[in-house]
Amino acid sequence: MTAPPEINIGLMGLGVVGTGVAATLLRRESPISDVTGRPVNLKKVLVRDVSLPRDIDLPPGMLTANAEDILADPDIHILVEVMGGSDPAEGYIKQGLAAGKYVVTANKEVMAKSGPELMALARENDVQILFEASVGGGIPIVGCLMNELAANEIRSIRGIINGTTNYILTRMANERTSFEQALSEAQGHGYAEADPTNDIEGIDASYKLTILASLAYRRAFRHQDVYCEGISKLEPQDFRYAQELGYAIKSLAIANLDDGAVQLRVYPALLPAEHMLAKVDGVYNAVEVHGSLCGQVLFHGMGAGREPTTSAVVGDVIEAARKMGALPPGMQDRGIKPANGPSVRPIGDLLSRYYIRLDVADNPGVLAQIAQVLGDGQISIATVIQKDIQPETGSAEIVITTHPSREASVQQALQALAGLSQVRRVSNTLRIEE
Amino acid sequence: MTAPPEINIGLMGLGVVGTGVAATLLRRESPISDVTGRPVNLKKVLVRDVSLPRDIDLPPGMLTANAEDILADPDIHILVEVMGGSDPAEGYIKQGLAAGKYVVTANKEVMAKSGPELMALARENDVQILFEASVGGGIPIVGCLMNELAANEIRSIRGIINGTTNYILTRMANERTSFEQALSEAQGHGYAEADPTNDIEGIDASYKLTILASLAYRRAFRHQDVYCEGISKLEPQDFRYAQELGYAIKSLAIANLDDGAVQLRVYPALLPAEHMLAKVDGVYNAVEVHGSLCGQVLFHGMGAGREPTTSAVVGDVIEAARKMGALPPGMQDRGIKPANGPSVRPIGDLLSRYYIRLDVADNPGVLAQIAQVLGDGQISIATVIQKDIQPETGSAEIVITTHPSREASVQQALQALAGLSQVRRVSNTLRIEE
Repeated sequence: MTAPPEINIGLMGLGVVGTGVAATLLRRESPISDVTGRPVNLKKVLVRDVSLPRDIDLPPGMLTANAEDILADPDIHILVEVMGGSDPAEGYIKQGLAAGKYVVTANKEVMAKSGPELMALARENDVQILFEASVGGGIPIVGCLMNELAANEIRSIRGIINGTTNYILTRMANERTSFEQALSEAQGHGYAEADPTNDIEGIDASYKLTILASLAYRRAFRHQDVYCEGISKLEPQDFRYAQELGYAIKSLAIANLDDGAVQLRVYPALLPAEHMLAKVDGVYNAVEVHGSLCGQVLFHGMGAGREPTTSAVVGDVIEAARKMGALPPGMQDRGIKPANGPSVRPIGDLLSRYYIRLDVADNPGVLAQIAQVLGDGQISIATVIQKDIQPETGSAEIVITTHPSREASVQQALQALAGLSQVRRVSNTLRIEE
Repeated sequence: MTAPPEINIGLMGLGVVGTGVAATLLRRESPISDVTGRPVNLKKVLVRDVSLPRDIDLPPGMLTANAEDILADPDIHILVEVMGGSDPAEGYIKQGLAAGKYVVTANKEVMAKSGPELMALARENDVQILFEASVGGGIPIVGCLMNELAANEIRSIRGIINGTTNYILTRMANERTSFEQALSEAQGHGYAEADPTNDIEGIDASYKLTILASLAYRRAFRHQDVYCEGISKLEPQDFRYAQELGYAIKSLAIANLDDGAVQLRVYPALLPAEHMLAKVDGVYNAVEVHGSLCGQVLFHGMGAGREPTTSAVVGDVIEAARKMGALPPGMQDRGIKPANGPSVRPIGDLLSRYYIRLDVADNPGVLAQIAQVLGDGQISIATVIQKDIQPETGSAEIVITTHPSREASVQQALQALAGLSQVRRVSNTLRIEE
């Protein structure tokens, strides 16, 4: 493709983000043309129903319900996909790339499931697919992993990359509300969807982690490679005990390279209260990258919402417009390659400290029994908190933290603990990040 | 320039950073060739004296004391300048650009003083000058302002971008040591130079702020445009009062756009203790960018040192290697342009809250006199702390914070206060950032 004198955009999707992108592209004083060195125009916008009322005034004839008006138009150079979901978005992206269009997408699901394939298709067609908006909203983590931090071997990525869960956890920590109450508040504020499963069960974060890890380790991970636990199991007392022990509870997405293999996990974990990530509150996101050269670099900002996501999408549009017509050889190769790089280490191999909360009968000798089971599993106890009996139930609560132990041994010990007659319930098990 | 099959580097300078860059470029398992798609070789290294012992083993013949061995060699494609200082570095950079070489530099002084001129020279020669390492060490702030955040109009940049001063302030805050004591510790750890003027008087930070502001506002600011105050005037009691009032004291570099003009300033300021920047301790750096779309994005990491700076330099080498031979039109234009964009607002126009510490005679009516002077200047008092008399001197200390006031009025009032017979000394005046 040679560089066109003007660059035309076809936008797919006019929801919250699409409206922000359209508004920014239509603004006269926008810096876009200035920094790209040529006009960048919004030409067509794909919506499901052109007759619906909109939050934005678009020039007549710009809306269409027919994807071919964008895909088959050779004068549209960049396809911006902000529809979300796999289908039909992925098909449109493929058609766009095959037609020699640059693609900018905010679609974490498509990029997590088919990113390497789409990047290969882009290479074959001498274009690029850009996806800064798929992770971290206004935080430029995707570009930094691909570009500015490219000299580093990435030791680990630890992120708070789902604003919904972080909002819920912040409410539970600060107000000691129940999970259900905090979720309902999040829904009331529009931070959580009516069906919150994707967010609270860590699926959204696992998509994002798959993308980040694939870029960091230059290997096509699948989102099924991510070990995933949600936050619905957390109870108010977990936050109380965590605080007593000097920790916050955050849902972390972690990728780390250890002995040639990568471990990928999303779960609520205890994090020292003074750690920067422990101070990330509300709907904010943060990602900490530990590189061989840069050391620990933390990025903090709004992880979602109309404007932050528009910042990422339009940033990619600018990058595409700058590159168009002049992709040097090798430049297309900086993204995810299919099989390449380190393998995935199963969760059972994890070496971590653990927090274990047990509901026990208030009988003498119960702690000795528990300690015996842990000792048999070579799990060394770091701290014990035993709380007063609840008179109405006759039960007591014991919270144990361990020294670093192997996940598989801990899971085995938890089964054994659950089988003890004195143990009424293993109420919760959380990992501790240092 | 067409893309060469292999890319050769000429490195100028083999100090701490140069050694890190050389070591990284020489490593076999480095990701550099992988992500650039072609071999990247270190060919020549310029040093003052080839016979000196080195911390690094270089292949025979690689060292030279003659800059022409790099500048006149057409097979050297990228000039990496990590010598520091204006002269002869700037001359070498100009020669390199004129000879059609890409230039990667860590030189904040050269970029602050001559960045726009050098970028124009690069454009004329169809190459680029890259300078991620000139600000923030391992924090990718330069690239993010040019690329990932390019869709934003930048409202403000606030940064802690000098690790030496931040180390000293952290020691003064945590240990209540004097400035002199903390400086001497910093020198002992190698964080401060024997002549610390550049760091403690804010000159280093003003160079870096000039670079960031020029990128953010696409205008060639001069470092003389930066209003600059050092940290040597701080005394232990300032930290005590700040803490009482709920603030930390940090040396901030601030660029903000207000009503079409940019204000540029480097000074120690009070910052709410819960603000993320207030928690940046020791030699760490952080930069908070407030963009029209992205909102507030914070970058935190190591701002100096061999490895972090190497991360930035080699990241730029990778970018140069990717682009080489294929710079699309307009792509060269994304940096600083000479006269363009908003003008500079003088410090007298600043609207800020102020912290004023006064050493006063312990006589009745002194506070009334002070309040009268401030009131005459239309400066509204927010809080007053009056501390017990020091019996040996008969003097007392009054700390006043103001509501937002105009700098020029405050300076005028400070002169009037100094003239009051009851006021022995205006001990310190600091601005308060919210």
